[in-house]
Amino acid sequence: MLKRTTPVFLTFLYLMGPTSAITMANSAETDAPRSVILLIGDGFDDQHVTMGRNYLAGPDGRLLLDAMPVRGAVQVQTVDNEGRWTYVADSANTATTLATGVVTNIGRVGTGPADEDVMTILEMAASAGYGTGAVSTSSITDATPASFIAHVSKRICEGPETILGGEKYGLPFEGCYEDARGNGGPGSIAEQIMTSPIDVALGGGLIYFSERLPDVQTSLLDTAKDHNAVVITEPEQLTSPIPDDKRLIGLFAPEHLPVRWQGDGGRKAESPDPSWLNLLDWRLGSVDQPAVMSCEPNPEYGKTPSLAALTRVAIERLASATSQGFFLIIESASIDKQSHERNPCGSIGEIAQLEEALQVALEYAGRHQNTMVLVTADHAQAAQIVPEPSLFDDIPVPVYSPGKIARIQLDDGTIMRINYATNNFESEEHTGANVPLFANEKARAYLDPYMRQQDIFEAMGEFLNLNVTHDTDGL
Amino acid sequence: MLKRTTPVFLTFLYLMGPTSAITMANSAETDAPRSVILLIGDGFDDQHVTMGRNYLAGPDGRLLLDAMPVRGAVQVQTVDNEGRWTYVADSANTATTLATGVVTNIGRVGTGPADEDVMTILEMAASAGYGTGAVSTSSITDATPASFIAHVSKRICEGPETILGGEKYGLPFEGCYEDARGNGGPGSIAEQIMTSPIDVALGGGLIYFSERLPDVQTSLLDTAKDHNAVVITEPEQLTSPIPDDKRLIGLFAPEHLPVRWQGDGGRKAESPDPSWLNLLDWRLGSVDQPAVMSCEPNPEYGKTPSLAALTRVAIERLASATSQGFFLIIESASIDKQSHERNPCGSIGEIAQLEEALQVALEYAGRHQNTMVLVTADHAQAAQIVPEPSLFDDIPVPVYSPGKIARIQLDDGTIMRINYATNNFESEEHTGANVPLFANEKARAYLDPYMRQQDIFEAMGEFLNLNVTHDTDGL
Repeated sequence: MLKRTTPVFLTFLYLMGPTSAITMANSAETDAPRSVILLIGDGFDDQHVTMGRNYLAGPDGRLLLDAMPVRGAVQVQTVDNEGRWTYVADSANTATTLATGVVTNIGRVGTGPADEDVMTILEMAASAGYGTGAVSTSSITDATPASFIAHVSKRICEGPETILGGEKYGLPFEGCYEDARGNGGPGSIAEQIMTSPIDVALGGGLIYFSERLPDVQTSLLDTAKDHNAVVITEPEQLTSPIPDDKRLIGLFAPEHLPVRWQGDGGRKAESPDPSWLNLLDWRLGSVDQPAVMSCEPNPEYGKTPSLAALTRVAIERLASATSQGFFLIIESASIDKQSHERNPCGSIGEIAQLEEALQVALEYAGRHQNTMVLVTADHAQAAQIVPEPSLFDDIPVPVYSPGKIARIQLDDGTIMRINYATNNFESEEHTGANVPLFANEKARAYLDPYMRQQDIFEAMGEFLNLNVTHDTDGL
Repeated sequence: MLKRTTPVFLTFLYLMGPTSAITMANSAETDAPRSVILLIGDGFDDQHVTMGRNYLAGPDGRLLLDAMPVRGAVQVQTVDNEGRWTYVADSANTATTLATGVVTNIGRVGTGPADEDVMTILEMAASAGYGTGAVSTSSITDATPASFIAHVSKRICEGPETILGGEKYGLPFEGCYEDARGNGGPGSIAEQIMTSPIDVALGGGLIYFSERLPDVQTSLLDTAKDHNAVVITEPEQLTSPIPDDKRLIGLFAPEHLPVRWQGDGGRKAESPDPSWLNLLDWRLGSVDQPAVMSCEPNPEYGKTPSLAALTRVAIERLASATSQGFFLIIESASIDKQSHERNPCGSIGEIAQLEEALQVALEYAGRHQNTMVLVTADHAQAAQIVPEPSLFDDIPVPVYSPGKIARIQLDDGTIMRINYATNNFESEEHTGANVPLFANEKARAYLDPYMRQQDIFEAMGEFLNLNVTHDTDGL
């Protein structure tokens, strides 16, 4: 939300809609349908890509991603609150850059570093008449999808109640005071999604749409019809007939969708166990590595709709509702979330989901040639594939990770060892490597082998003939 | 070296030379000069690429590498001694795959998993009449360059003495018994370099060429003229007139060349220092992060010739000695070695060297259009860019790496934090991510966006019109 001390130039542009900030650059090139499908693997860096390939396809196999004809690298950029470069991002600021072309601070959703609202490519596409959608295995109010739809100063402001601040994990948190409706703002992320033009939003996040302020009788769920939206919460409803002219919001879990896989018995990475002698002198004694882990179905997954199923519904609705084409962002969210929790099986199951969703996207692109399909990550993550055994196994000293280790058994009986050792806390840190980019042939002319996340925004905008040059002089 | 129990089919092919295993596939396409320049950044994964970019060009800048028109990813493959997949490699087995197309065991140099000698692309190129060269900031007998020139079962067998085994760092090591000359083998790596066809070999490694067995009066240095070679050991000699028809071996350090940069005062990454209270309960107390580090010239670097200077000499000699073209492998070796030692400034200085050498290669390619320029890594490495401060800095619990941290000051005063936390030992582990590939336009038609290291071997061989299909039926 724009700070009161900031010139309102961009907000003005935003309110003016397509006649000012957005123009159809060249209608001759807009052979309909013309669509962009952007898949984001959250935390899906090359360590995770390789983890996924090794497990799902074998080290001599290929992921569907690997068959994409265009591949490149994308620099992730972040500035701190003083405007200085900082070298590791979060999902909010990176999704905001992909969505708006603006480099911003960690935690920001659709807002620039001066707290200015910045129009997103999804909003620009909607204003230009395209269908728009967002699909995620996270809460649809979570940072990545939210940054394409909403504008708040802090990613935590997901619902009408949380936007006012409160306590989480026993710790107080600040809300987004100026963004709250009671303070004249556009409201929380869930409120903005409800009132936004987005045609399809599918994921988790029911609790944020169910929050009620103490003095309010209704939740956002009760207001859906006022916004031409149908809210569904059961997977079966995905196949019910819902008129094409209705907006569809699907919320299939209280918060994030359960992940497909887990370590056996719910195990995650564990600390190696050095002997007492080794603790006295690192050159002595021995170490027990954690037992080998196999991946198994997560019992909580149940009837959770797959990312591919959600993607299919989103594409079908968008394709039938408009002949112009659409912008759709699809996120496999829990590659990152499971890496934070040191659960490589969880991450790998989410990579499998990303692959399946990509298959659905490529099927559509196969039938509609003017479709740009991009797959990228928002930022790199903690997990590392490390040697099993150590490279220094011949040396008569116990060698082991200072962090946590998972030794995952693959189908052929071999073991892939994953290291999580960025901190001592309950949640791993992100890391700062550039991230991969994969694209279909149609996208090639708009891409370079090396890009910044803001360049991805521009490439998508150019493809959709949107005017994506931000006029930031007024800021 | 071929085991006595293994059929000698490949050795036979090797001895037969170009009339059997190597044929000029299509002489019409060999517009001379036709050359391959392969640059290997040892351990140069995307974390290191980004570290280098952030430091050398700024996070909004571009490395020379980033301007390369072709970019892709390469899967690193390794098998263990039982032939099962294993997921993290070393420089010997990966360089062997790049050099020969054969996937092999950790530690092997130019030998397959059954200890069979496998002809390398450098040897094939030499047999087909191309000039050949190897340049490295490591000992020229070290794993990466050696795997293009020599064939031993263990990378440690670098000199006539070490091939017999011995003791290093106070630990006994086995040599390569069957490879030793006294046992009818081809000798150590240094001996094989001396007798190989390679035209230019520049790097470190003087001690391995100086080793003498107890009953031998001369070292390899004394035998150079018997092999039409001139050995130089002083940087000034690089500009002395050495006849084009002589082979040139330059050895500018006892072992590896000193690196260009170090942390201030020789500092490397250090352990965060938690308070005693925190050691009693991880939720309490405080932590001191290591002081900020600046990179400074390494006083040991002195007059060490740069990788670019060595590259220039190698290219000039190869270009003037033959009109057919050449195969040249160039290694920036200490990105990896300094990452093992947790010295990010050392690694970054070596990335700068790689960039400069690439510039020299691209200048040559600019003047000679039939030049394939490739840059890749052999394997990923331990270093990770992590947040400064932690993503969880707002949480009232001391959050810190369980490993070692360097907080590097960049030119604009910002701080890039690097984490080394793959083990508790004196040397970090390699990691298993796929590695980047960069190439010039001329190479595009021979490459795919996703390849295996063995595919890189084939691409180079095809470009040079060598017959790179291994007939392994006889093995």
